Amino acid sequence: MNKTVYLDNNATTRTDPAVVMAMMPFFSERYGNPSSMHAFGGSIHKEIEDAREKVAALIKADPSEIVFTGSGSESNNHAIFGSIEALGTDSTVITTRVEHPAVLQACRALKEKGVNVIEVGVMSDGTLNIDEYSEALTTPGKKLVSMMWANNETGVIFPIKTALEKARNAGAIFHTDAVQAVGKLSEVDVSKLPVNMLSFSGHKIHAPKGIGVLYIRKGTRVAPFLKGGHQENGRRAGTENVPYIVGLGKAAELAMEELASGENKRIAAMRDKLQEGLIKCPDAIVNGSLKDRLPNTLNISFEYIEGEGILYHLSDAGICASSGSACTSGALEPSHVVRAMGVPFTAVHGSTRFSLSRYNTEEEIDYVLSVVPEVVDRLRALSPFVTS
Amino acid sequence: MNKTVYLDNNATTRTDPAVVMAMMPFFSERYGNPSSMHAFGGSIHKEIEDAREKVAALIKADPSEIVFTGSGSESNNHAIFGSIEALGTDSTVITTRVEHPAVLQACRALKEKGVNVIEVGVMSDGTLNIDEYSEALTTPGKKLVSMMWANNETGVIFPIKTALEKARNAGAIFHTDAVQAVGKLSEVDVSKLPVNMLSFSGHKIHAPKGIGVLYIRKGTRVAPFLKGGHQENGRRAGTENVPYIVGLGKAAELAMEELASGENKRIAAMRDKLQEGLIKCPDAIVNGSLKDRLPNTLNISFEYIEGEGILYHLSDAGICASSGSACTSGALEPSHVVRAMGVPFTAVHGSTRFSLSRYNTEEEIDYVLSVVPEVVDRLRALSPFVTS
Repeated sequence: MNKTVYLDNNATTRTDPAVVMAMMPFFSERYGNPSSMHAFGGSIHKEIEDAREKVAALIKADPSEIVFTGSGSESNNHAIFGSIEALGTDSTVITTRVEHPAVLQACRALKEKGVNVIEVGVMSDGTLNIDEYSEALTTPGKKLVSMMWANNETGVIFPIKTALEKARNAGAIFHTDAVQAVGKLSEVDVSKLPVNMLSFSGHKIHAPKGIGVLYIRKGTRVAPFLKGGHQENGRRAGTENVPYIVGLGKAAELAMEELASGENKRIAAMRDKLQEGLIKCPDAIVNGSLKDRLPNTLNISFEYIEGEGILYHLSDAGICASSGSACTSGALEPSHVVRAMGVPFTAVHGSTRFSLSRYNTEEEIDYVLSVVPEVVDRLRALSPFVTS
Repeated sequence: MNKTVYLDNNATTRTDPAVVMAMMPFFSERYGNPSSMHAFGGSIHKEIEDAREKVAALIKADPSEIVFTGSGSESNNHAIFGSIEALGTDSTVITTRVEHPAVLQACRALKEKGVNVIEVGVMSDGTLNIDEYSEALTTPGKKLVSMMWANNETGVIFPIKTALEKARNAGAIFHTDAVQAVGKLSEVDVSKLPVNMLSFSGHKIHAPKGIGVLYIRKGTRVAPFLKGGHQENGRRAGTENVPYIVGLGKAAELAMEELASGENKRIAAMRDKLQEGLIKCPDAIVNGSLKDRLPNTLNISFEYIEGEGILYHLSDAGICASSGSACTSGALEPSHVVRAMGVPFTAVHGSTRFSLSRYNTEEEIDYVLSVVPEVVDRLRALSPFVTS
């Protein structure tokens, strides 16, 4: 097989060619500024509102509740900093230890400014420690919860319905980073789960990198994060990224079709096949709950070997996978997510994430299954930790 | 003439087809995440660094001093909030009354948090009130100056060399919003004018909307604005917008060529021709200095008539112009810029901005000159203010 097998879709996805096609007229032909008084620019406004409707439909929101941002990270910063700016710094932020850095770093910046921040832990299978969460909610005063819908590294799904109910009972505002859940789980439906805020990102659902969404439920008080012009109804300054907004509209439409057609079942079947094959490697452990998990994600540790070594060898074979997340890589420290789960030291360094998309094929999975065990064997032979 | 004559290039520009071409491979082919450990993603990193070099060259910076952001507005927010986060809220921010909303609103948000903010005024020709500025710099303690290089509405150029020298003598950090100056003025050269920070935007130099740059001089302390992942060397979180970064590199390269070839002289000649023709209209006044002005901008008031009326009629004739800036429109209030200049009430509402680019032709200017005087006459006939 002389092509790239891309199994790193939790890091970023291929922009769908239909999305590119939808964006194209807005670069060099219909390039007006939607805020302009002339028809050439003003007519662009309608295109943005059309896209907003499509994006809203994907999560069953009202279009007026959709704010286009520059990334999932910006959406998360917006939700957290904007809420605390509205609530006051005498509030408590409740989050978890396995959040994306855009949530954790925002919370830590607030902590430095004196905001009370509680990081709730997870169980050994990566699921939420509900007791710790309930305990955190007993903190008196104004509270913001920021909890991811599904984990980027393990795919573990948090019990958002239960967590939201508990938060509402405790009078807390509820934000969820749903970057990994939108387009993968049909349960992401704000008409049924009335979260206050929900973040997601274009480039995880086959739109380009550089566009995100913050859903802000009507009546939720949140200050703008990017301050300046009147764009996005005064909620986010900066000239609208028209091509990407239109592209995200198209990507949302396609994601809805995929969800409706049961595409995720096909993806889950491929993931399961991959898991069944890889778990046969000696000392392989799946990280994270097998039950509450995204259909496309497999995080697996091969004890006694380095994840980096595996990734390099896979890369040579044209296979793209990941250790931890792209957003925390660069640092050679083991993932904060698997550490929070208490994965043993000997396994934490060997955790490898395979994340699938609708572009993957069963043939690709067969190829990966023909490559990985051999790589693992080779690396184990070199490992100083293997004594047998 | 049955086409659009686009004279609103200070609002946004056409993305150069060569820029679109440069971006194309990075949507659906080379779509990897540059932070990934596999070669498919990792190889993208080099493309980003190539673009960074080209962008740095445009303003004569070191590539390591270039931070890619999501917009000029984000760059301005980053510079102002990030500096005050580093300096402390017991600092003074010195800015001007004619800044872009992304600067003014950021300063006003800081003011609400107790930061001392001084807004320096301008003279009747839109040039900086140097005495007020010098006076502001005598404020004791830590200081940040944020001053635009050139005004978006009038094109008036501020004396950045003098202002920077005075700021340095007073021990102040110096930021300039150069969104309208980059690509239009060869003087924007940080090797000669050692500002601490400089903002600019892609979509004003024929790259797409949704990408900006913050130049941060080595040694300048500024906290990240968008917090989270390690991207941009820890200075700006969020997965890199690879296509737009590559596109901005190409746009910077083209802008350098245009600056070198003297294209701005051709643009200025067209602007001057337009001005000479329009100033013949009765009660027409050019707003802003004729001397210190961008080569592409003409802001002209036709007394006693509404700018909006002019714009609608021009739009019907296929001509795109602007009243004030797109970022403050929507509000029907007259522009804060011409008000700060003390333009008379009867003229302030009729201010109309024509802003040219390399795509304009002399034929287009002739067409505009054949349309505008007639529109002005028609509207003056309806004006309740005209008594003669």
